[in-house]
Amino acid sequence: MAEFTWSQLDDRAVKMAKTLSADAVEHAGHGHPGSAVSLAPIAYTLYQHFMKHDPADPKWPGRDRFILSGGHASLTQYVQLYYAGYLTLDDIKYFRGGADTRTPGHPEYGLTPGLEITTGPLGQGVASAVGFAYGQRYQRGLLDPDAPAGESPFDHNIWVICGEGDVEEGVSGEASSLAGNQKLGNLTVIFDANHIQIEGETQIAFAEDVLKRYEAYGWYTDEVSFIQPDGSYKEDVEALAAALHKAEQVTDRPKFIKVDTLIAWPTPGKTNDPSSHGALLGAEAIAGLKKILGFDPNKTFEVDEEALAHARKVAERGKAAHEAWNVKYEAWRKANPDKAALYDRIKAGKLPEGFDKAIDDLEATYKVGSEVATRAASGKVLNAIAPVMPELWGGSADLGGANLTDIDGATSFAPEEYATTQHPKVSPYGRQLHFGVREFAMGAITNGILLDSDTRPFGGTFFQFADYERGAVRLAALMKIPNLYVWTHDSVGLGQDGPTHQPVEHLAAYRAIPQLEVVRPADEYETAEAYRYFFEKDNTLPTAMVLSRQVLPVLPETAEKAREGVKHGAYVLEDVEGTPDVILMGTGSEVQVALAAAKTLAEEGIKARVVSVPSMEWFEDQSPEYHESVLPSDVYARVSVEAGLAQPWYKYLGTFGKAVSVEQFGLQGEGLQNLKDLGITPEHVVESAKESIAAVKAVIK
Amino acid sequence: MAEFTWSQLDDRAVKMAKTLSADAVEHAGHGHPGSAVSLAPIAYTLYQHFMKHDPADPKWPGRDRFILSGGHASLTQYVQLYYAGYLTLDDIKYFRGGADTRTPGHPEYGLTPGLEITTGPLGQGVASAVGFAYGQRYQRGLLDPDAPAGESPFDHNIWVICGEGDVEEGVSGEASSLAGNQKLGNLTVIFDANHIQIEGETQIAFAEDVLKRYEAYGWYTDEVSFIQPDGSYKEDVEALAAALHKAEQVTDRPKFIKVDTLIAWPTPGKTNDPSSHGALLGAEAIAGLKKILGFDPNKTFEVDEEALAHARKVAERGKAAHEAWNVKYEAWRKANPDKAALYDRIKAGKLPEGFDKAIDDLEATYKVGSEVATRAASGKVLNAIAPVMPELWGGSADLGGANLTDIDGATSFAPEEYATTQHPKVSPYGRQLHFGVREFAMGAITNGILLDSDTRPFGGTFFQFADYERGAVRLAALMKIPNLYVWTHDSVGLGQDGPTHQPVEHLAAYRAIPQLEVVRPADEYETAEAYRYFFEKDNTLPTAMVLSRQVLPVLPETAEKAREGVKHGAYVLEDVEGTPDVILMGTGSEVQVALAAAKTLAEEGIKARVVSVPSMEWFEDQSPEYHESVLPSDVYARVSVEAGLAQPWYKYLGTFGKAVSVEQFGLQGEGLQNLKDLGITPEHVVESAKESIAAVKAVIK
Repeated sequence: MAEFTWSQLDDRAVKMAKTLSADAVEHAGHGHPGSAVSLAPIAYTLYQHFMKHDPADPKWPGRDRFILSGGHASLTQYVQLYYAGYLTLDDIKYFRGGADTRTPGHPEYGLTPGLEITTGPLGQGVASAVGFAYGQRYQRGLLDPDAPAGESPFDHNIWVICGEGDVEEGVSGEASSLAGNQKLGNLTVIFDANHIQIEGETQIAFAEDVLKRYEAYGWYTDEVSFIQPDGSYKEDVEALAAALHKAEQVTDRPKFIKVDTLIAWPTPGKTNDPSSHGALLGAEAIAGLKKILGFDPNKTFEVDEEALAHARKVAERGKAAHEAWNVKYEAWRKANPDKAALYDRIKAGKLPEGFDKAIDDLEATYKVGSEVATRAASGKVLNAIAPVMPELWGGSADLGGANLTDIDGATSFAPEEYATTQHPKVSPYGRQLHFGVREFAMGAITNGILLDSDTRPFGGTFFQFADYERGAVRLAALMKIPNLYVWTHDSVGLGQDGPTHQPVEHLAAYRAIPQLEVVRPADEYETAEAYRYFFEKDNTLPTAMVLSRQVLPVLPETAEKAREGVKHGAYVLEDVEGTPDVILMGTGSEVQVALAAAKTLAEEGIKARVVSVPSMEWFEDQSPEYHESVLPSDVYARVSVEAGLAQPWYKYLGTFGKAVSVEQFGLQGEGLQNLKDLGITPEHVVESAKESIAAVKAVIK
Repeated sequence: MAEFTWSQLDDRAVKMAKTLSADAVEHAGHGHPGSAVSLAPIAYTLYQHFMKHDPADPKWPGRDRFILSGGHASLTQYVQLYYAGYLTLDDIKYFRGGADTRTPGHPEYGLTPGLEITTGPLGQGVASAVGFAYGQRYQRGLLDPDAPAGESPFDHNIWVICGEGDVEEGVSGEASSLAGNQKLGNLTVIFDANHIQIEGETQIAFAEDVLKRYEAYGWYTDEVSFIQPDGSYKEDVEALAAALHKAEQVTDRPKFIKVDTLIAWPTPGKTNDPSSHGALLGAEAIAGLKKILGFDPNKTFEVDEEALAHARKVAERGKAAHEAWNVKYEAWRKANPDKAALYDRIKAGKLPEGFDKAIDDLEATYKVGSEVATRAASGKVLNAIAPVMPELWGGSADLGGANLTDIDGATSFAPEEYATTQHPKVSPYGRQLHFGVREFAMGAITNGILLDSDTRPFGGTFFQFADYERGAVRLAALMKIPNLYVWTHDSVGLGQDGPTHQPVEHLAAYRAIPQLEVVRPADEYETAEAYRYFFEKDNTLPTAMVLSRQVLPVLPETAEKAREGVKHGAYVLEDVEGTPDVILMGTGSEVQVALAAAKTLAEEGIKARVVSVPSMEWFEDQSPEYHESVLPSDVYARVSVEAGLAQPWYKYLGTFGKAVSVEQFGLQGEGLQNLKDLGITPEHVVESAKESIAAVKAVIK
């Protein structure tokens, strides 16, 4: 698209985008009008003149991806989606209109055709866009590695509009550093520098030289100012297009184009005013805006039909592009039947043949009674399935050797010039990711990978530092995308790295996130079965594998029962004849503690059932009958044992149950000693079981 | 200290620092030896030649502050503390030695004399160091604003050593941007660029130009390379000192000095090897190291007594500096009796006279039956106490107008050139903080303010985005420093900003953090009393005020009972004659729901006690007798109502209680409609109460 023509009709369409945005917020009675008004020419230029997209097929794999990082300005995108035909005028009128709207306050993935990602939490749009580019490149490497640049059906561009808030957030900086490192030539970020944020002009908190910062990250940068040297304002789309064309020639670096704008321009009294960010412009200002733009101040949602018809033509161009792509795509399929089969499989989210066998073969090597950390078990599973699952890739936030997220013999994902002594095998299509110490970017980038591609990423860090990426984990859950977190070093049992590194509240805090599934396997068998079920289930939910640093015994009970049990989230690991006197529940490294306690109780004539609870979320998915079979409601005496807060357990403990838990920050001691010092012992479980039984007897009929 | 002399004894002391560090890790059997070995000359240069400190008085207010941001290299600091006399050789030998060590794996605030902050979670040391500089400047402004630069007893410098991981983390970038903005001339960061991290050479994930980035933030930058042009390595402390002296002349910007090093140098076989980061060097390598450095390879913890005696002389210099400071300080006291009184008060952590009256006077303006959002109530309290509490200052991550964290008429904290249309009153000593959209930096900076100064900061954001600063909140809790979080927009009741902005799991997730106190007041009265108690109690714990966006009725019940009740965390807001049939528990916006339900139940002859639970943590602090008086253990029928996850409530609900809660992500609708759609209604509470009563009857004796 080397030519750029801009007509009066384009101009009128941009003006209409401003009035529609202003009307939509006013009609809703709330929202963020300012940026939607001033971003209209930029978004229009992208959607109409630069982006490849087909409104008739919002999921066309060949489309460019657009991300509005500052999600509060969602109308910026909705209006362009209306112009292109993804949405209707009624959608614009129903902006923020109710729980069933397709045009919500912030863009929500899955609600709106043509929308790629949920945004709103600032910075993450930029960071996930980097992930989109990662995903595109890795998938291209899987399917069409040798095509010349730009010639593959798996080539596309990623476009971002972001604002000051996005660039202030650290996560965008983390990801942008990686984007420079990775030389992501298909990523273009347009930085809307309106120098205004909620608290006013930005210089009071944001006086840095952003372009210089992005140069330091290794990006191509340019600047276009709509504020003219004489102080006047001109939405100079020609200059913007020229800058974008120039940037298109740069294919070896991501591109960052700063556009200096005035928020809400040309709304009278509201232009360059921070109140236009998140408050109504008001009837008077909107009337003034309409007058300036040649619209009837007495009409709302006035449509310039001719301009709309002109804008709608983007659909024809999109159709043509899609058809051209189809030819290319079919040619590729013919030439690459094996890769086409792979593509069909991963696109359908199906597992490869050999997946189950890979896990079965691995389990055949397990030795009951041996001792293996579940982080090591996890590493072995990833390596067992990696050969049959080329779509599986990932890495760690600089803890690969500790999280055991390295894939044996894998090539690292990086430009070849960045090969290192430790990672000499490096390629832009590499499978092993290296995030540096940037957990939040890792979370946002893996989200982007899932949204752009059909591949399956994973990201590892210490469970403690999951907190750094929590914002991205929540968005994965909200979007229902199956991100995979490998979180190791899961309790005070990690030892002398101390309280700064010892999770205590983390199981409670991550179980709390809706639509996130937290799995804490007890040993090698449960770890293998946890991965099997995660991949096998028709899973659209992100899942965290929470894994021990310390070795854990491989249990005879799990050898027998994990295969059926783990997928139910909780299962009877060891039972007694008749009704149990007490139920002992545990997860991870504490399952062995529950088993030991049951043995002692049995010696004293107390019948204790042991329930392993690898995943509360998976358990909650089961039927009431299954729940009753595992935790009979008339067995009130219960004990939970887990090296973390009891908060998530009270639900199962009830009035008479006792928690063996850690309710304080960790200790500086050796790991097993810490566990003992904090009372995570069979003796404590035994004692708690007796207390619980006594409490029940005193009260229950 | 313009002169820099470096003797053979200094050299020997540095060598000994290396061998002691290597021995300490080897003796412990675990730890991070590499950086401690290679950072020895840098840390020694700072502690011996640049920093003002007095080992005889680790809390001397005039001291410089030192922050080791890469906390894993803690021996770097411990050895210098041993040299200066803060620690003993036994402490070094007991490195990571057990739960009672003074030299833990990562520096822990409060455990080790001479140590200013807990570090380990990367990036936060740098970010909190920015807060130290904020705190120093604001306190100087309070106490000694007119003294020439460097002449005040309240002037001191902040020194940081950080590594690549610190600089990769986004939080350091956020805070460094603010530091540049604020022109913090007393902050010097030494960036240990050893080009190695856990996954190997950094270029695979960190190829950016860090110095250029820091220039972009507005910092002074310089570079010293220990790697010589001919490839040899020389710990060129003279060049480092020269760079630091040059940097000392720069007082209008923070300073970032990159030092190119080789990790673990000169350990044979381990130098420049990533394995030296977190694994033992091994006996052979340590023997080799000792030989190279002139130590006996057969001895461990060998002390070069002459070098030690030389290094110990820093205590004399510190004493002299302290004595000189005393003179200055006493002169200041005499000249400024009012300010001295203020200093004495804030240093002692005492409230001002007039504090209670300010709150009482505010409460006298409340109107039962009127409707006020608790965020608005919070803003009024902050403004009511601000005139009598000059030590109180704060702001928001660009949501001042929404969090209502603005102090009326306050001057903003920023260099004067950054005044804006919206904030024309600006001063380096200003009281109103503007963090930009940088929640994590806000959390870390307010931590730093508390650690450096005697002032009381607060920081506001949407409760949703507390997740972005969670890592800093946890460190505040771990350090037991009374940070104050103003978290508004606390539920789905915030409305159409939608699920990205609606907290659901957040109350559970923050209540889970040990030593963090979470308070969710029901109305204006409870808000005022929550603040009163937070400041009045002998509180060293960080506290979150969780506040509604929507208006809430000012209740007659709280008017009467909040003053006594709130401080107990939970209290009987409305009671019945005799034993209640059921207890209804609620917080925040749901207390009115519980009250309405109780009324309906009463009409049906069911006796419901209503318990308001502004803070579970404060309630947990009460005696068993008080607990029993509020939640009698023989009243098993209970209902909780809170617009968030039920997880924290099961503890109080027991087997027969019912939770009226939100167990899913939020909705796109209007706030009150969302609450209804999600079942947060009196009708649902009534129905749940009946269910609970029935469940109890069926089972309890």
